[in-house]
Amino acid sequence: MNYRNILLALLASPLMATAQTVTSPDGNVVVKFSLADGGKPTYEMTYKAKDVVKPSGLGLELVKSKHASKGMKETDLMDGFKVKDTKTSSFDETWTPVWGETRTIRNNYNELAVTLTQPATKRDILIRFRVYDYGMGLRYEFPQQNELNYFIIKEEHTQFAMAGDHTAYWIPGDYDTQEYEYQITKMSEIGKVFDKVYERYADNSSTTTFSKTGVQTSLQLKSADGLYINIHEAACLNYPTMHLNLDPQTMTFESWLTPDATGKKGYIQTPFNTPWRTVLVSDDARDMLSCKLTLNLNEPCKIEDTSWIHPTKYCGVWWNMIVGAKSWSYTNDYPSVKLGITDYAKCKPNGTHGATNAEVRRYIDFAAKNGLDQVLVEGWNEGWEDWFGHQKLDVFDFVTPYPDFDIKALNEYAHSKGVKLMMHHETSGSVINYERHLEDAFKLMNKYGYDAVKTGYVGDMIPRGEYHYSQLMNNHYQHVIEEAAKHHIMVNAHEATRPTGICRTWPNLVGNESARGTEYEAFGGSVPYHTVMLPFTRLQGGPMDYTPGIFETQLSSWSENKSFVHTTLCGQLSLYLVMYSPLQMAADLPEHYEKYDDAFQFIRDVPCDWDDSKYLEAEPAQYITVARKEKGKDNWFVGGKTNADARTAVVKLDFLDKGRKYECTLYKDAENADYEKNPKAYTITRRTVKKGDVIKVKEARGGGFAMSIMAK
Amino acid sequence: MNYRNILLALLASPLMATAQTVTSPDGNVVVKFSLADGGKPTYEMTYKAKDVVKPSGLGLELVKSKHASKGMKETDLMDGFKVKDTKTSSFDETWTPVWGETRTIRNNYNELAVTLTQPATKRDILIRFRVYDYGMGLRYEFPQQNELNYFIIKEEHTQFAMAGDHTAYWIPGDYDTQEYEYQITKMSEIGKVFDKVYERYADNSSTTTFSKTGVQTSLQLKSADGLYINIHEAACLNYPTMHLNLDPQTMTFESWLTPDATGKKGYIQTPFNTPWRTVLVSDDARDMLSCKLTLNLNEPCKIEDTSWIHPTKYCGVWWNMIVGAKSWSYTNDYPSVKLGITDYAKCKPNGTHGATNAEVRRYIDFAAKNGLDQVLVEGWNEGWEDWFGHQKLDVFDFVTPYPDFDIKALNEYAHSKGVKLMMHHETSGSVINYERHLEDAFKLMNKYGYDAVKTGYVGDMIPRGEYHYSQLMNNHYQHVIEEAAKHHIMVNAHEATRPTGICRTWPNLVGNESARGTEYEAFGGSVPYHTVMLPFTRLQGGPMDYTPGIFETQLSSWSENKSFVHTTLCGQLSLYLVMYSPLQMAADLPEHYEKYDDAFQFIRDVPCDWDDSKYLEAEPAQYITVARKEKGKDNWFVGGKTNADARTAVVKLDFLDKGRKYECTLYKDAENADYEKNPKAYTITRRTVKKGDVIKVKEARGGGFAMSIMAK
Repeated sequence: MNYRNILLALLASPLMATAQTVTSPDGNVVVKFSLADGGKPTYEMTYKAKDVVKPSGLGLELVKSKHASKGMKETDLMDGFKVKDTKTSSFDETWTPVWGETRTIRNNYNELAVTLTQPATKRDILIRFRVYDYGMGLRYEFPQQNELNYFIIKEEHTQFAMAGDHTAYWIPGDYDTQEYEYQITKMSEIGKVFDKVYERYADNSSTTTFSKTGVQTSLQLKSADGLYINIHEAACLNYPTMHLNLDPQTMTFESWLTPDATGKKGYIQTPFNTPWRTVLVSDDARDMLSCKLTLNLNEPCKIEDTSWIHPTKYCGVWWNMIVGAKSWSYTNDYPSVKLGITDYAKCKPNGTHGATNAEVRRYIDFAAKNGLDQVLVEGWNEGWEDWFGHQKLDVFDFVTPYPDFDIKALNEYAHSKGVKLMMHHETSGSVINYERHLEDAFKLMNKYGYDAVKTGYVGDMIPRGEYHYSQLMNNHYQHVIEEAAKHHIMVNAHEATRPTGICRTWPNLVGNESARGTEYEAFGGSVPYHTVMLPFTRLQGGPMDYTPGIFETQLSSWSENKSFVHTTLCGQLSLYLVMYSPLQMAADLPEHYEKYDDAFQFIRDVPCDWDDSKYLEAEPAQYITVARKEKGKDNWFVGGKTNADARTAVVKLDFLDKGRKYECTLYKDAENADYEKNPKAYTITRRTVKKGDVIKVKEARGGGFAMSIMAK
Repeated sequence: MNYRNILLALLASPLMATAQTVTSPDGNVVVKFSLADGGKPTYEMTYKAKDVVKPSGLGLELVKSKHASKGMKETDLMDGFKVKDTKTSSFDETWTPVWGETRTIRNNYNELAVTLTQPATKRDILIRFRVYDYGMGLRYEFPQQNELNYFIIKEEHTQFAMAGDHTAYWIPGDYDTQEYEYQITKMSEIGKVFDKVYERYADNSSTTTFSKTGVQTSLQLKSADGLYINIHEAACLNYPTMHLNLDPQTMTFESWLTPDATGKKGYIQTPFNTPWRTVLVSDDARDMLSCKLTLNLNEPCKIEDTSWIHPTKYCGVWWNMIVGAKSWSYTNDYPSVKLGITDYAKCKPNGTHGATNAEVRRYIDFAAKNGLDQVLVEGWNEGWEDWFGHQKLDVFDFVTPYPDFDIKALNEYAHSKGVKLMMHHETSGSVINYERHLEDAFKLMNKYGYDAVKTGYVGDMIPRGEYHYSQLMNNHYQHVIEEAAKHHIMVNAHEATRPTGICRTWPNLVGNESARGTEYEAFGGSVPYHTVMLPFTRLQGGPMDYTPGIFETQLSSWSENKSFVHTTLCGQLSLYLVMYSPLQMAADLPEHYEKYDDAFQFIRDVPCDWDDSKYLEAEPAQYITVARKEKGKDNWFVGGKTNADARTAVVKLDFLDKGRKYECTLYKDAENADYEKNPKAYTITRRTVKKGDVIKVKEARGGGFAMSIMAK
């Protein structure tokens, strides 16, 4: 030790005096809180003694009031703090989700709650840390107090200082869309390739990036020394969605909230808690997928009677329109339409309308025959002729069917066959309009027996100037979920904010899009690793309505669309397991499934609710193999998916009951299968299996496999 | 003529070739339309051959699309036009308003409709002129067409080039408030005194001026040669409110629309018509008050059954709070409250809450005893503890009464006495929140028998960044009116956009504030000429809920408020006639009226619906004397009001039936009355009168008189 080090040690001592440490139940994760010079809140995090987050600042910058110049006290919540109180505690509870990957979920953490006081302002805040075996969450809490009742957030400055130039699996930070392909670069490369990545998306009407080093959460990282790290948030309620902005000089990510139309970020009334800022960590990639930290950091279910909430397998009048063979609209007579004025009964049908009585009946028949629960119908209601890109306020009323969609008769026909229709509410981003019609729209659903709605927010928002992920819009999505719950309606929200585990509290939120879904396979395609990336990132916050199951992967074989699906047919089957969701679509056309009925048997068989899930193999953007046990039954289903590289999955049947025999059906890529050259080549084999058997399955380039293991 | 003039004449000839002229039915008003150089639409207007509007440009500037750079056609609707078609027509119809100043209204105009085409873009627009005996209206019409379906307005450039440096009676142009005192200056002085005028208001949380020569409409002007000119708009529906910005170099006012949160001004889908831009003109100030041009330019009534709409005289639990003696809030226990979480049953009442059961019963008794129809109650519902200034989204739910307001019992008690309660919905500017609760709030009103609501929009708007008078907010106010009509509810909207005659189409809009009301007499006072200014300006668009009738003009005599009302007691009485409204409040406290019961007899007697109205004397900001005939009866009521100068009104009883005798009761200022020194000195005299009698009445400084003339 030289003199300089002695001096530093002396200087550091006041800081160390206030340091508080909290450790995960298994001892692997350690989080330390301290006040740095100037009373600045700081934390750091290690995993098995390796740095995960180096000392990083915490705090919030506030908007100054209009009246600040008149002597009102105005300050930030950034520094000048003293520790007023610290409390540590432990928590261990097992809860039962309404639906999920496992029958029960253990919520086991150690907690540190630090109350800080800012003497200059007489304001107190609390920072709460919860440390789990595979990560931690921290949040800010603002108790009600005389000197802190209302404030406006200019920016939250929660930092995540990384210990190295990790590999990042990232998409551009954007206030309005999440529908990007993941980039895989060193953190230091993000800023260098950002423009090139973004220029492919800039044509979208609703895309708003904010920084060339800005990325979205959940952000997956991998360190050179083998740590998997994931940064996200949990329980984002009445708060703007968080992005991360990288300082490449210090390898530090910092929170960057979504602003409102005026550039301000959050309007807070105390008492209030921010969302949790989460960091997952493990040296085994599979823990990234099985860890339930995001759900655990959300509040328990607030819906008392959940009997009406159910996992759902469905097909729909949808893919035909996405591919371009059919239209959502009913007529081409008018350059624009006005609801309540345009008389659809008098105009000429365009002949391409998808949601006709005949077509919907065909889908109902198909669903009934194949055990699918529901039929989604898009384009059933007036207004699709000019719904997009015009910032049109009164774009849909959500209650008036087109002349060729007999809502009463079709629902009755579906119910007579044991099937339900699934409602579709596209808002075109006109939130003001949707809220005006929400109650009537839900009443219509109740009247005709719909119990699930797919909502959509395509395009620029109204109120104009608001972004898809601002506080007010997040408040809107939550408003819809809560109003829907009153009507016993399940919600599957597309283009809404990425989920943050809110489905624990509101399990009628059965799905979200909030990422690049299967539709992009008809818009030029997605990289083959996309679906072995999404479970590490987008799915951290909740299930995605990815709409898998496209068997006719070459769209040009039946339409004028030149795109092709970037997986094999078996790769499509694997997604029903790899991409967990209680809502699973069989997205292709009935006539396509009929051509491959033996493979379709897997979709008939696979459930979408589970008692248990075992991630057998996983590496971000490379492969995922998962086994899941059917809810209330002894059947298992296994799925594996690879990226553009062929590989051999190894499925060890350790999870089966000892001494029991199972009938295993394996749907796998044929030897010569290839997502580009020979996507529909598959083989189906059956054998009897038992615990301890090991099955090796070759996955083609862009391929995968599916397996049903039925207890005998 | 020299050569230069010959040349100019030659150049001008193509312009002259396209000029079109339309004249008022009486021939006094002439409007000429022409295309100036470059195909720019231009108009001019004369009255009795005097210039009213010199050649002035018309047109709209459009926002360029995001995709403009990619070859999409982008152009303004400013010039490059050719005349495609012109049509002239005449119209003469008499219609019957649901309520009003007269039993019937004649709508008699000559019309010129010019269809313009812009060859470069293949776009057509139409400019329609309607010319009346006392003015004209013009508007832009956009037919549905292939090349013009949707567009965004950057600015409307409708010009009003004045013929001189007129005297202007103006208030600052402001996107958020109209609650200013009128300034009286030469037009050329507006910019010079603007800052000094504005600084008195800049403390308001919601005030947004945009130009130091920006003023509001309706703008009253007076020319040196004795013309009264008034610029306003009619039928502002789904469009932003228009302000006027003066170019002092050319004495030209130009339209300046209220922007949205993104700075854009209007989102238009064709077919669409803008509001009418109106110019009233006469050489007799009384014509400014009697002219019904604004109403006539609105569409006929759209409510089929109007039987539930009725003029209303009311008192209310209100003035006590405005003065500061009582509070809207129920408790002082908390620095802030949250609806549904704060338990009001458990907190300590503050002892100052106005809307208690006992107090409301006292007002009901007072109303019943004195023939008042309704009792307004403000502060009846949870949320008033922190309702203002916090941009709080969930500020009120409009359905939950405070513990000391028994909504069921109080309504039953009122109904048992033949009185109704009047509902109050203060939104605190949180429009998103109000729309979420609107249906439940109206259902509650229907349940308990309310049929009128006073709405309020105090403070900054939510959606944040929107202004009080933007297109989206104007759309909201209209949404509330139309939803209220479905529930048979009358609306009296405060802090909403200034009216533009929409009450013809939606007569359940029985009142607006939209100007500086009586409440300011408790906030430091208003200039004595304020109420002889408002009928020339604010009232052009529709009635104002001015809430007159303050008898205890010295507030310090019964409260700690140091303000005083800037009229005499008789001046207050005169307002029931001078400020026409179907909704009239007796705003003072019952105990104050009891002290002056002989004067209160006039408020008991005066109706608020009329068969006829005669403006006997008028000069802006100086005096107004008006006689009105009670609806369905042969009684007349006369009111006169002066400014800070004493004067003698001359009331010629020409309007009485010949040969009939009437009992006339005159409420007039005492000889020594004075609004500052002796405001409550009055005399009441009775005499029999007949047609042809002339009554001279002395009005004190800040005073006035009222007269009932009952047929014997």
